[in-house]
Amino acid sequence: MRCEVLAVGTELLLGQIVDTNGAWLGEQLAQVGIDSYEHVIVGDNQPRIVEAMRSLLAKTDAIIVCGGLGPTQDDLTRECIAEVMNVGLERRDDIVEHIASMFSARGRDMSENNKRQADVPRGADVIWNDRGTAPGLICPVGHKVIYAVPGVPHEMMAMVAGAVLPDLLRRSGTKSTLVSRMLKTWGTSESGLAEMIADRVDAQTNPTIAFLARGIEGICVRITAKGTDDEEARVLVEHEEQALREILGDIVFAVDDETMESTVLRLIVERGWTLGTAESLTGGMIASRLAAVPGAGDSFVGSIVSYDAEVKRKVLGVTAERVISDECAVQMAQGARRVLGCDVAVAVTGVAGPDEMEGQPVGTVHIGLAVGEEQAEAVKIRLPGGREQIRQFTTISALDLVRRRLLGIAASTGVR
Amino acid sequence: MRCEVLAVGTELLLGQIVDTNGAWLGEQLAQVGIDSYEHVIVGDNQPRIVEAMRSLLAKTDAIIVCGGLGPTQDDLTRECIAEVMNVGLERRDDIVEHIASMFSARGRDMSENNKRQADVPRGADVIWNDRGTAPGLICPVGHKVIYAVPGVPHEMMAMVAGAVLPDLLRRSGTKSTLVSRMLKTWGTSESGLAEMIADRVDAQTNPTIAFLARGIEGICVRITAKGTDDEEARVLVEHEEQALREILGDIVFAVDDETMESTVLRLIVERGWTLGTAESLTGGMIASRLAAVPGAGDSFVGSIVSYDAEVKRKVLGVTAERVISDECAVQMAQGARRVLGCDVAVAVTGVAGPDEMEGQPVGTVHIGLAVGEEQAEAVKIRLPGGREQIRQFTTISALDLVRRRLLGIAASTGVR
Repeated sequence: MRCEVLAVGTELLLGQIVDTNGAWLGEQLAQVGIDSYEHVIVGDNQPRIVEAMRSLLAKTDAIIVCGGLGPTQDDLTRECIAEVMNVGLERRDDIVEHIASMFSARGRDMSENNKRQADVPRGADVIWNDRGTAPGLICPVGHKVIYAVPGVPHEMMAMVAGAVLPDLLRRSGTKSTLVSRMLKTWGTSESGLAEMIADRVDAQTNPTIAFLARGIEGICVRITAKGTDDEEARVLVEHEEQALREILGDIVFAVDDETMESTVLRLIVERGWTLGTAESLTGGMIASRLAAVPGAGDSFVGSIVSYDAEVKRKVLGVTAERVISDECAVQMAQGARRVLGCDVAVAVTGVAGPDEMEGQPVGTVHIGLAVGEEQAEAVKIRLPGGREQIRQFTTISALDLVRRRLLGIAASTGVR
Repeated sequence: MRCEVLAVGTELLLGQIVDTNGAWLGEQLAQVGIDSYEHVIVGDNQPRIVEAMRSLLAKTDAIIVCGGLGPTQDDLTRECIAEVMNVGLERRDDIVEHIASMFSARGRDMSENNKRQADVPRGADVIWNDRGTAPGLICPVGHKVIYAVPGVPHEMMAMVAGAVLPDLLRRSGTKSTLVSRMLKTWGTSESGLAEMIADRVDAQTNPTIAFLARGIEGICVRITAKGTDDEEARVLVEHEEQALREILGDIVFAVDDETMESTVLRLIVERGWTLGTAESLTGGMIASRLAAVPGAGDSFVGSIVSYDAEVKRKVLGVTAERVISDECAVQMAQGARRVLGCDVAVAVTGVAGPDEMEGQPVGTVHIGLAVGEEQAEAVKIRLPGGREQIRQFTTISALDLVRRRLLGIAASTGVR
């Protein structure tokens, strides 16, 4: 079974929007073992959309068309599919009603244009949309099929997961399933990671192993196994995970949807503790990422963002002469514990650039950590990259230091 | 003149990497007035790459191929272009030397594989690469042309700007240039914005007008004009900008590379003032965005992230009974001014979800603002979307309130 992706939208060609739907769809198709060999982007132009559909259909079993289902005259996907199917469009009253009810729920009037979204090529099935006005479409073309889904990512994702993939799997009659798991690591470079597990990567057939450097999300190792059923694939993944964990040890900080933030907050909650931060170069980024975790309020209390040296001194009680120093980082962490009234405080001070500070080069970062009444500690690291990357790597490094301390494992080495 | 983009890489189809090169290239081509109607992504498979090249070449004047120029057996772009050109590959000694020198500069040995990057289809010109080992290629195919550039964005961008676009313009013989300008707005919805300037959009021919909703970056209006030279296009853009500004008024907060953060910091610096924040639901996001602006330290002093109610009371001195209230927002702003010692403080408190708080629904946000010794004020707004969107919209709304106050214009209406 083979399924290609066609994204429709002049704004994609002009670079006004980056197409992230194609990558997500490619990932989903790979996960269920359906081949995808080609992704195409075309603009809002009927002859070119029709040509792309025909040209892809000649090679493949199925196409997922993203976008072009909106209410305006630029939205041509419905017309194009009808042309390829060689049928007319029918306006469906039940869809008009659904759209009207979505508008009235928001206290707005439906414009005449919106009724275009109720047009369905004759012979197509409708995928209902709970999140927006445009329904999706399942359109048979001979023994092949064109799916139409909106370009809005969360609407598209819901339809693909709920209707398109199940329909594709039914058509393919395939019995094989894929299971994958992502191990997230921090503390070594991508090439260092690759060297550590080179033997297992070289030997890979099923499961396969892939690397993904995800910036502030860490460096990830993805294990993907194919099996005749979920259980078989899952056992293969777990066996590989165990082998990789024996090699990688404590640099693995999270699995799948867990993040460094959610891991740290879980460790804090497990101990019945609270967490706060004191931030200079990150300017609140660590706190903001912690606060992004739903339920963060159970353990995250807040932050003193002491961007200015005066705030470090007056609010946090820093007396260190140099702000780019272990001493300052320690005093910031102690000050945050005291001022915020939390059990654990992590603090960062350093040079994000563009200019050096106090004779220290860009990328110099000191992380301080205060846990209860124990002696506060500090670690100095050197980070690569520009201002934003340094701020992001500082954020994950600081949280990783908290994780390591709570788990009783050594801090990772000073220089990455 | 028409030029299409072909991205090569199985990792793109599998969704392991999102292709951002295509959007950037589309933008560059549009800027110089070269049409681009189709972008295609294929995997590392010689027959499929060759087929995609031939199929695109049948329709277009030029193709930019991104990726597949690396040293491994998976990197097939050189072989595929040679096949399409119907010529052999020649290993060029001068390129081998260049690659060897890049390796020795990094203190590493060049592997035998890397010499593959010195292979050039007979008759092709080389684009030298100062940033990596893989050279780019300019490959004539009859009166058409295939450009090959690396997939690594910064190497690709340097080659396209330095060699590919100039070569394309030379071939097109075109004298027209495009100039564009982006007006960034906050304070009305995308559809509200569209209604305001519908007449000008309907009348558009040159310049053209496009809308872009960019989340925390605001809602943008892009003006693009074509002219026989830069000056002519620039005058057209400026004329349209003036007309649009007369309609849009003070909802325009920035132009082109300026952001809400840089605008606010500029207004603060102009007054010789300092700025701080007090944040609840945003958890430091406002501060982090301010700190991301290079040179922020001239006017941004820091933040009290009072996620926990106790921090609001003890650090900021909040006495309001309800934390989701104008009273609390005002007290937070006053407290931040006092604790941080800044001239202007903006504060936010509200419900990011997933659950309601104090009987207030998700999306309820109060923004407080304290400017010098003047009476502090608060605004209540209602924001749509999920947790992350509410946090982002709160961030830009809070900064916009500062901007409006400093410029002496009214706060935007409570409900968006």
